[in-house]
Amino acid sequence: MTSASSSTVCIAGVGYAVPAGIRANSEILKAFPHRTEEEMVRLTGIKERRYAAENESATDLAAIAVQHALRQAGLEATQIDGVIMATLIPDQPVPSMASALARRLGIPHALAFDLNAACSGWLYALEVGRSFIVSGTARNLIVVTAELLSRITNPQDHHTAFLFGDGAGAAILTAGANGHRLHRMGLGGDANQFEAIQRPGGGARRPFPCAERSDLNHFFLQMDGAAVFKHAVHGFAEQIEQTLAREGLKTDDIAWVVPHQANERILKAVSRRVGIPYEKFVMTISKYGNTSAASVSMALGWAAEEGIFNDGDRIIFCSVGAGLTFAGGLLVW
Amino acid sequence: MTSASSSTVCIAGVGYAVPAGIRANSEILKAFPHRTEEEMVRLTGIKERRYAAENESATDLAAIAVQHALRQAGLEATQIDGVIMATLIPDQPVPSMASALARRLGIPHALAFDLNAACSGWLYALEVGRSFIVSGTARNLIVVTAELLSRITNPQDHHTAFLFGDGAGAAILTAGANGHRLHRMGLGGDANQFEAIQRPGGGARRPFPCAERSDLNHFFLQMDGAAVFKHAVHGFAEQIEQTLAREGLKTDDIAWVVPHQANERILKAVSRRVGIPYEKFVMTISKYGNTSAASVSMALGWAAEEGIFNDGDRIIFCSVGAGLTFAGGLLVW
Repeated sequence: MTSASSSTVCIAGVGYAVPAGIRANSEILKAFPHRTEEEMVRLTGIKERRYAAENESATDLAAIAVQHALRQAGLEATQIDGVIMATLIPDQPVPSMASALARRLGIPHALAFDLNAACSGWLYALEVGRSFIVSGTARNLIVVTAELLSRITNPQDHHTAFLFGDGAGAAILTAGANGHRLHRMGLGGDANQFEAIQRPGGGARRPFPCAERSDLNHFFLQMDGAAVFKHAVHGFAEQIEQTLAREGLKTDDIAWVVPHQANERILKAVSRRVGIPYEKFVMTISKYGNTSAASVSMALGWAAEEGIFNDGDRIIFCSVGAGLTFAGGLLVW
Repeated sequence: MTSASSSTVCIAGVGYAVPAGIRANSEILKAFPHRTEEEMVRLTGIKERRYAAENESATDLAAIAVQHALRQAGLEATQIDGVIMATLIPDQPVPSMASALARRLGIPHALAFDLNAACSGWLYALEVGRSFIVSGTARNLIVVTAELLSRITNPQDHHTAFLFGDGAGAAILTAGANGHRLHRMGLGGDANQFEAIQRPGGGARRPFPCAERSDLNHFFLQMDGAAVFKHAVHGFAEQIEQTLAREGLKTDDIAWVVPHQANERILKAVSRRVGIPYEKFVMTISKYGNTSAASVSMALGWAAEEGIFNDGDRIIFCSVGAGLTFAGGLLVW
């Protein structure tokens, strides 16, 4: 794999999916009688989010997003070499949700694994997919993400109850110039902020059910909102600035920013910090909330479906997730 | 990244770690009064395994393995660009255990994520790392794995109680020819065997504690031994044969096979099937059991420490894991 063309990797198709069930702020507010709808919208930018029904799975949503992306790419599932799934809460921990999806799609022999970099997961997975294609490991890949955050959100915790929603998104990555060129992603983080967002239970440290109600809290996503705000604004801005520097571009060269839908206030602060107008930020947070790894893929899929991108548009991806993990990179439409 | 040399990736150092606590067959047999030590050794090849103490974590073991690998590679942690952690049971699900380790190692800004391809996880992670280096994403990477299977093994389930143990292993991957050259890994699977090995609880489908004892079983690793035996023998043999074909090698060209330590009977059947003497299989299963993603790295680390490899030895890696996932590839010592 030493020719220049082998390092050209494109997104040939995108898709996203959300469950039909809408959870409005008014329903969540029932647990917080002293708070108001206006306050919640001002703090987060979120008016509603989707919650999967009890019989819906993340794999179900992922399969819909993938089918959409495959159609757009003009590929059959049988032409796919592998499934890379970004998620922080797979339907079950073992086997990977990627394996479940490979079976569902009728490609049981595809390479398949799950990747967890929290809210940066899908961008990390895109860079793994791009590298696999550059290095000759694969030619056509599904890079997919699905999160049912409703299942691990504490409805009594005002730091998180309004924030999180469910959804899925996918991209088809291919070798060659057929599609939208994906440049090398910058990946990093700030692990000193490990405690800012976490789900302490469900791993080797606390694998199990416990009868005590107090222990249940460890199995929910927890967030230190003030720490996240401060470090997320810095992280997003750094990723955008590093992407501009790596690509030799100025802010005016950028048509769109597709960020992780962390929180409207955070992203408005990022816009001011880097000097890219907030109107260029593709935002879906008001109707879908923060869907962790799925949010960038959903915003991209939504914008593609709306037809807001023009050929040649330079689009910056950026994210900050639990870890903290950071990612940022350029897509040329 | 278009020059030939940029595609040379080497393992510059390896290391492994196990907890001090030995769990002998005799202790596990107390739950199975009708079974014998001889029967268990004949069925699995396992005489003892290590169990972490309550205050030991997978991150603790991983850090020891990494420090050993860094010393062997002659690198400081600060020269590392990223941490790729293969595990099916991180200490906690969010953030990634890779982020926890990056903080522990004093490299909080490194890229960091967890990868789950079950027992094939470390080989999948090696291929991700190799691809990152070929594609220019990183120059020096830690590819690490740690599993505390004791925490999710049901001591009452005779299909699994004897099989699983705890451990960790690591390799330092570097750009260029300084070390042992890692060739492209083949990655695949057979997702039609999704149910053969699973941990149904702990994900979005069953995220929580439940008071009913019957539900607890979903949080343990479960295995259909007969299905695993059949498909694992086939999968291991296929990975070895595909590696030989990809590399243009014959069985006689292979000095060593470092397989996932699934089970001694499975690997003896693989040896017969592919025609490589069992003496060439590096086996640590009798003292460490099956440690999932960690087992290949532990066997490699142990063999390197024992000094059994000679310069230029062609070593085949191969694995079959829950999913099913398959991996196979060549390392030249």
